[in-house]
This record gives sequence, C-alpha cells and structure tokens, in this order.
Amino acid sequence: MSRFILKRSISAICYSFIQPDFRLQSRITQASLQACRPPRCHYSKACEVTKMSSNDKLLPRIFKHVDENVDSYKQLLKEAVAIPSISSDAAHRDDCVRMVHWTQEKLKEVGATTELRDVGFQTIDGKQVKLPPVLVSVLGNDPKKNTICIYGHLDVQPALKSDGWLSEPFELVERDGKLFGRGSTDDKGPVLGWLHAINAYKAIGEELPVNLKFILECMEESGSEGLDELLFEKLKPEGFFDSVDYVCISDNYWLGTTKPCITYGLRGISYYFVEVECAKMDLHSGVYGGTVHEAMSDLIYLMSELVDKDGKILITDMYKSVAPMTEDEKKLYTSIDFDPVAYKTSIGAHQLAHNGVKEQLLMHRWRYPSLSLHGIEGAAFQPGAKTVIPGKVIGKFSIRIVPHQEPAEVEKLVMDYLNKKWAERGSPNKLKITAQSGRAWTEDPSHPHYQAAARAVRMIFQTEPDMSREGGSIPVTISLQEASARNVLLLPMGAGDDMAHSQNEKLNVRNYIEGIKLFAAYLHEVGLLKK
Amino acid sequence: MSRFILKRSISAICYSFIQPDFRLQSRITQASLQACRPPRCHYSKACEVTKMSSNDKLLPRIFKHVDENVDSYKQLLKEAVAIPSISSDAAHRDDCVRMVHWTQEKLKEVGATTELRDVGFQTIDGKQVKLPPVLVSVLGNDPKKNTICIYGHLDVQPALKSDGWLSEPFELVERDGKLFGRGSTDDKGPVLGWLHAINAYKAIGEELPVNLKFILECMEESGSEGLDELLFEKLKPEGFFDSVDYVCISDNYWLGTTKPCITYGLRGISYYFVEVECAKMDLHSGVYGGTVHEAMSDLIYLMSELVDKDGKILITDMYKSVAPMTEDEKKLYTSIDFDPVAYKTSIGAHQLAHNGVKEQLLMHRWRYPSLSLHGIEGAAFQPGAKTVIPGKVIGKFSIRIVPHQEPAEVEKLVMDYLNKKWAERGSPNKLKITAQSGRAWTEDPSHPHYQAAARAVRMIFQTEPDMSREGGSIPVTISLQEASARNVLLLPMGAGDDMAHSQNEKLNVRNYIEGIKLFAAYLHEVGLLKK
Repeated sequence: MSRFILKRSISAICYSFIQPDFRLQSRITQASLQACRPPRCHYSKACEVTKMSSNDKLLPRIFKHVDENVDSYKQLLKEAVAIPSISSDAAHRDDCVRMVHWTQEKLKEVGATTELRDVGFQTIDGKQVKLPPVLVSVLGNDPKKNTICIYGHLDVQPALKSDGWLSEPFELVERDGKLFGRGSTDDKGPVLGWLHAINAYKAIGEELPVNLKFILECMEESGSEGLDELLFEKLKPEGFFDSVDYVCISDNYWLGTTKPCITYGLRGISYYFVEVECAKMDLHSGVYGGTVHEAMSDLIYLMSELVDKDGKILITDMYKSVAPMTEDEKKLYTSIDFDPVAYKTSIGAHQLAHNGVKEQLLMHRWRYPSLSLHGIEGAAFQPGAKTVIPGKVIGKFSIRIVPHQEPAEVEKLVMDYLNKKWAERGSPNKLKITAQSGRAWTEDPSHPHYQAAARAVRMIFQTEPDMSREGGSIPVTISLQEASARNVLLLPMGAGDDMAHSQNEKLNVRNYIEGIKLFAAYLHEVGLLKK
Repeated sequence: MSRFILKRSISAICYSFIQPDFRLQSRITQASLQACRPPRCHYSKACEVTKMSSNDKLLPRIFKHVDENVDSYKQLLKEAVAIPSISSDAAHRDDCVRMVHWTQEKLKEVGATTELRDVGFQTIDGKQVKLPPVLVSVLGNDPKKNTICIYGHLDVQPALKSDGWLSEPFELVERDGKLFGRGSTDDKGPVLGWLHAINAYKAIGEELPVNLKFILECMEESGSEGLDELLFEKLKPEGFFDSVDYVCISDNYWLGTTKPCITYGLRGISYYFVEVECAKMDLHSGVYGGTVHEAMSDLIYLMSELVDKDGKILITDMYKSVAPMTEDEKKLYTSIDFDPVAYKTSIGAHQLAHNGVKEQLLMHRWRYPSLSLHGIEGAAFQPGAKTVIPGKVIGKFSIRIVPHQEPAEVEKLVMDYLNKKWAERGSPNKLKITAQSGRAWTEDPSHPHYQAAARAVRMIFQTEPDMSREGGSIPVTISLQEASARNVLLLPMGAGDDMAHSQNEKLNVRNYIEGIKLFAAYLHEVGLLKK
C-alpha cells in the first residue's frame, strides 16, 4: 500500500485531463508537432535548437556504429534473457539478484559509478524474503549538461514453455527478424538499449551530451516493492534528484506495429487478492465432496459478480469519479493511427469488445477503467483431471484505473461491494481481501522534453510520433514524477504486438536496433535543451 | 469416454440398492457378521472354515516375521515414493515408466512371471503421448487353490512442497508414527503391502495359500487411460480372468482413524473440462483490458452457475435419477462409527455442510451426488500479482455420481445445462466441453469373499470391520467387476485422515505394518474358501 504516499500529488498529475485546455493536447497529438509552434507553446528556445540539431554530424556516425554492432547487441540481450529473473516467484529471487549484479557490471564497464541499494524484505506466506537490491548508478556530473534520470526494470513475468511458447522462454531465439524470449521487450531490451547508446558515443570518441542517473529495479512485475521507500525516504532526501532535469522511462510499446509513439498517459492499477478458506488443507473430492462448504464455489461466486460479459464493471459507483468526456477529447480518438482489424487479428480474438469500433476501443484502453480476472492461486492448474477440493484459494483480479479515480476510493468501493456480496452469500468460510494500487498518470506533451524526444523519433523513423496514452500501468512513473518533480516521458522501444507478459514475448530486431539509435538521438536532443 | 463400454452392466451392479432386500445388507453391515448366519445366508461352507482358520499356527509366524522387518518395509516404500510418477503431467511420463519397471523387478524377485502390456497413446494438446505400460503378473498356477486378482496403481497426484507440504513430497519422512510422502497411502503403500505379505510367506518357508494375478497400472489418477481396452479387448479374450475367483483392490481408506472397514460401494465420477477461448495467446491486462471479451469472466460465470453455497447442484434434473432413500437405508447411517466433530477438526473446516449432522454427512458422501470445482488451467496460479488476461482457460469440475445415475445421462444433463447457460450469456468466445465418466459401484457384503476378509480384519484388529461405502471413485472397480464377472472387494490399508490427493499425504506406520499382516491373513482366509 506504499502507493498511498502519492495521494497528495493527484491533482497536479491529472490536470491535463480536467483543464479546459485539453484542446491544446488534442492538437499536439494530431501531428501538430511538425510545426512546433502550436498556440500557447511557450518553449520557443527549445524550438530554435531543432534546426541546429538536425544538421549535426555526430549522430550519423553513431548510427553507423550501431548498424555495425548488431550481433553483439543480440548477444548481450541473449545473456540477459538467460537469467530467469522472475520477481513474483521467491524461488527465483537469486536469479533476480544475479540479474542486478550482471547489469551492475555492464554499467561499470561504461564508466558509471554504481551502488546496490538495499530495500529490505517482503512477506510471502508469512515469511520474510529479502528483496533484490535496486541498482542506482551515475554517469557524468558536468554542471553545464542536462541530467536525465533513466528508469528500467530487470525482472520479468513468469514463463513456462508449456504455457505455449514455441521455444524456451529464457533462451533468446531469432525468427523472422524477431527476438523471442521472456524479458526481450519488457524490459531487458530497452535497458540494454541505453547501455548500447552510451557505448556508441564512447566508441566514436565523443563525450555524452548529458549526465545520466539510472534507477534499475528488479521488482517491477511484482508491485515494485521497496522502491517508493527508496525514492522518497532515501534518494530524495539525499539530493539524488536535485541535479535531475528530466526523467525518461522506456517500458512500454508503440500503439501499433509500424508507427512510433511517445506516451504521456497511463492507467493506474488496483490489484486484489480475494482469499477464501474452507479447510486447513486440500481435500479429496470423493472423500469430502458433499460434506464441506467448498472455498472454490464461494470464490467463483464473488468473482462472477465483478464484471459482465461486455466488460462493464458491476462494482457499485465504479464509474462515478471517472473524468467526464469532453467533446474535444471525443474527437481526438478519431485521428489516432489504430487499426482494430489488425489488432483483432494479431491476438486471434473472435470478436473485439464495443463492436470493434476504433474510438470506443481506444477510450476503453486509455480513459475508462477495465476489470480483468487473472486466475486463482491454490486451485488445480495443471493439465489432467485433478480431483481436489482446494482448502484455500486466492482469486486475483485487477482494475485498471483512470484519471480522477483515487486508489483509496476505488479500494473502498471494491471492499464494500465484495463484503456486501459475501454477506449475501452467507458462507461460513473465511474471507480475506487485500489490495495493491497505483494511480493513473498523465503529462503535458507540449513540454520541451517531449518535443526533444519527438525530434529524435523523426530523425530515426522519418515520421511524426503519435502522442499516445497507454492502457497499462507503470506505477513507478508517478512515483518518479513525484520524487523528482521533473517532467517524465515514456519513450517506447518495442512494438504493439510484442506480447509482453504473454507467451512468445519478442522484440523486433528493427525496434531493438533503431531503438538504440533513438535513445542515442534522444540523449543528443536533450543535451541541446537549454539548461 | 471408454467407460461407456460398461453401460450394459449397470442393472447388475447396482442391484443391492434397488432390490427390496436392502434390509439384509443393512443387518450385515450392522455387525451381524459375527454371527455369520444372517437370514438368507447361503454360504454355510464358508462359515464352517472360520473355526478351522482361527486355530491355524501359520499366521502368528507370519505376523512375527512382519514385526521383525518394519525397517525394510519403510525403506522400500521410501524408494517407491522417491519416484515422482505423476500421471497427469506428461513431463513425468518417464518417471511413471520407471515406477512400473521398478515394481516389475520386485514382482520378479518374489518369483512372479511379469509382462508389460502396451496400452497405446493418449492425446495431450493435440500431441500423441505414449501411455505407461500396465504391469500384468502371475504368481502360482495351482488348480486346487483359489486365485485372487489384485489391482493397484503406481501413479500419484501432483505435489509441490510449495503447496504447503512440511517436507519434500517425494521424500518419505517419518514423523510421529506417520510416513509422509506423495503416494505413501495412495497407492504405493498398499501395493508394496501385497509384496511384503507374499515375501512373509516365503520367508517362513510356507507356500502361498492362493494363486495371485496382478494388474498394476500407472494412470489411475488420470482416468486409467488405456486400461479398459486392455481389460476388455486383451486380457478378457485371452482368458486371463477365467481362473480368477475373486478380485481385491486396496486403494481406499478407513472411514475414521481407528476402526478398520471393508468397502462394498463407491460413488462414480463425471469429470468436466470447460474450455473458453477469447484469444490465441495470453494478453497484458493493461494493454488489452477493456477491448476484449475475456475468457475468464465467461468461464467464471459458467462455473458460478453449477452449485449453490450449500453444495446443492443447480444442474437441471441432476437429482432426478438418484436411488430413492428407503426407511431401512435411512436407519443404517445411525449405527456407523463416524464422528463429525473429529472429522471437522481433522480438516480444520470452519463449519461442515448439512449443519454437521452425522447421518446427513454420510448420505452426502455415499449416496448423493456432489459437485466440486477443482480449478482453472491456463489462468494465473502463481503467487504474486500477475496481470494477465488468459487467452484460453479450462475450468475443471466433477460430479461424484451415485447409484442409478448413468454417466451418459449425467453428461447430457451437464452439457445441456452449460450450453443453455452459454446461450443466455451470449458471449462471442469459443466454448468446448469434454467429459470423462465412470459410474458408481456396489457389491453384496454378505458374499463369502467379504466374510473371509472380515475374519482377517478381526484377526488383526480384534474388532468388527464397518461394512462401508466410499464417497470417492475408483472406476477400475467397476471395470474389473465387469471384466472378471467375479466378486470384487475393497480392502483399505490407510486411515481416513491420510490426506490422499492433498498436502502432507501420509500412511500411519501402524496401518502399513498391520495392513501387511491383514493382507497375509486375507490371502490365508481366501485360501480356505471352498474352491
């Protein structure tokens, strides 16, 4: 529940969607960045440097170096993917620590100072389990240069070949210009991308145009446990952020598969663990079936009351605080480059929600909450006909929350609703509900930091980036915004079909290599911003 | 669906619960076996031999030998438990084969002829996976002796220490006079019990009083795939059962923890796999949440419509064909040695169903169907906050079916009901339901085979066995009854709190050792029955 520390920042964070000047963002989003002179753009200095930067001879040399080192980039990603740093499974905690150490060595090799920050313990099944350390690193301390704080994560989601992977998930394999492996795109590829970009500057004998500060954790896929305490109780008081000018995170994806984007908004998340216990142990359904009030049927009942078949959340008042839709916002969705048919085909869905209407789909990814039922811990999950009555089951679901929804308020609505349903059920079993939440986040995409990134994108991809939001949640985004009080930007490397968290996660070779160039160009462009 | 081969035998099998002479059974069950002359007992010859057998000097020598070899019995069970022969997981198929070979060697050592019968393949995820062979063995061929066909299984349920085991599940550990380990009681302990009993005869230089034929499979926990074909299409036509006089299975448990029982009835099982697919892969709930019709919410809906909180099955007409309760049968439950409070305490339940009333509990274990929700394959099951939208999920539930319920009829009711609910749901997702069923079984406990077993129990435990039924299902029981056309008897070794299929499965040292003696005494008593 460490996210509650952030409560005070909500009004600042979400302003862009409550202020009437949403019109401005809408224009910017619609490719007006080309002109770089939207109404009310206060950043003329930043605009001036655009021409200067585009004539620079430095970047072509860097790009050439990157093109010449593709094999070594793949090799390093292969090494990183081979470490199964699954943060949700305590059995892989050593692998998480190993992954942090491995990355520390790489940062040392580029000349950065590094330290491993202890972030304490987490409680799993009543036991104290040590958290992997957070890797904090500094490269450069030139007061004349801008300083970027870069965040990334080194842990991954669980993966088993038997889940439906075509190759071993922890063995990076290239097929058809795609690098398949758990963590390839989320988030080991992007983290290595920064290292490669730095190395490219070194390789051509040029100094970095910016100072860099890294915060690399290994618990992102498991609620970033311990990180907020580090940011707010250690790094901030120690002055770590004092010299930081901008924050950049590469931990999301393009909207589609061809057009790059820069992301200025994320949904939050409110994750629930609903535990029902009927017995101290699992029971044989033949021997005990008919004589106990089974925990599974209670849990399934509660889970069935959460969402209807069309995805409408049934929890009382869940939509009440959602930011109202303005006419201007409504129009915005029309111009976004998003193809519902390709989207449907890419996931092999039988039919999309909301009749597959593009605008509705985007709205329900970005600005409306959604509820997903993830699974049940403690029940039979293996193939075959296991005849168990689980003694204790933990149902898991989460709500992607959106601007104006406060985590504490959402949690209260969910708890009240579930407790009411539980009372209606009248079961003698034991119910326990816990929650973890992080709020939604938005930035102002007309900020010079965003414009610098947009110039970098244009340079690499010869196209205007979509200024997009994301349906996913990267709670650290809001934490970093709050801790640093600086502009935070999400600069995705991977494509929209990379299948993070899913079977056959991949990173396109093109996205990896052009992504390294993009990062190098972004460092260059930010270096040119007025200090 | 191989069980349908048995359809023709239902009227014969269940006669004891449809004929008005239920009264007879009821009397016998209530300890009238002591008198051994119940009304309408046609087995006077068998009765005569009782006195003869009780004066025999042979058995005390065997019992002494057994008591002197406890350590070696434990050691052999330890070896067997160490082989993780999990039949539901194809990754453990080699272990299953290894377990069969290991047992084959043990049978060879006692002088049995053995053969491994190929039972073909099973289909897992569209792939053909070879089934472990069935071990068929013959020991003795004396036409003057009775021949017992003994069935047991060598496979086990899955087990992970992280499920809540106090020690490694595949490492047999003794604590407080209990041998903890997966398979200790279900069914490796009993299978070894037969071997030890045979060895005891050999060790004291006495010949076996009966001929034995073994059928030991390694797929019992996974629907005994391939076994029915072997029994009906190979062994029966080959004349394997022609010389068999009796069939004995030790694969169930005492009703409680102190009083032995002999079992003459089992519930059947009808197991369902409800597969819902919304996408070809798992999806990230942030990126896709709100845009797809999620398979999980459809499945949870279907699962929530199956049973109410009190365990009442909601499937239309499910209770219609259940054998009606007679007044005599009702009375029967009163005298059974069963303590609901101890039962509740042993499993740590908060409250038992049916207000914990003993007679109701027994009826709902033995003579009424029960429905249990086992779990979901394809959904998140690990600890932690996995944020997946599963692309395909398979919900698993089963109904323990009872006399007069035909598997085909039950399956039709379930399919019709689920299809009706699915139509009401109106989801665009794909639904597929498959089923595996085996019917209920009962025998006549006044048969001389049961009386011989009862004498053996009295000899070892100095008490009258409860003639009991079981809530569980051992589908092979009905198959063996059908294939052999002989009287089948279930002779449990383990106690009612052994936790088969659950965490911390165990076999009491007492049950193991006295069970070996019981098996030796049973062989002796059956040897005395008129050929």
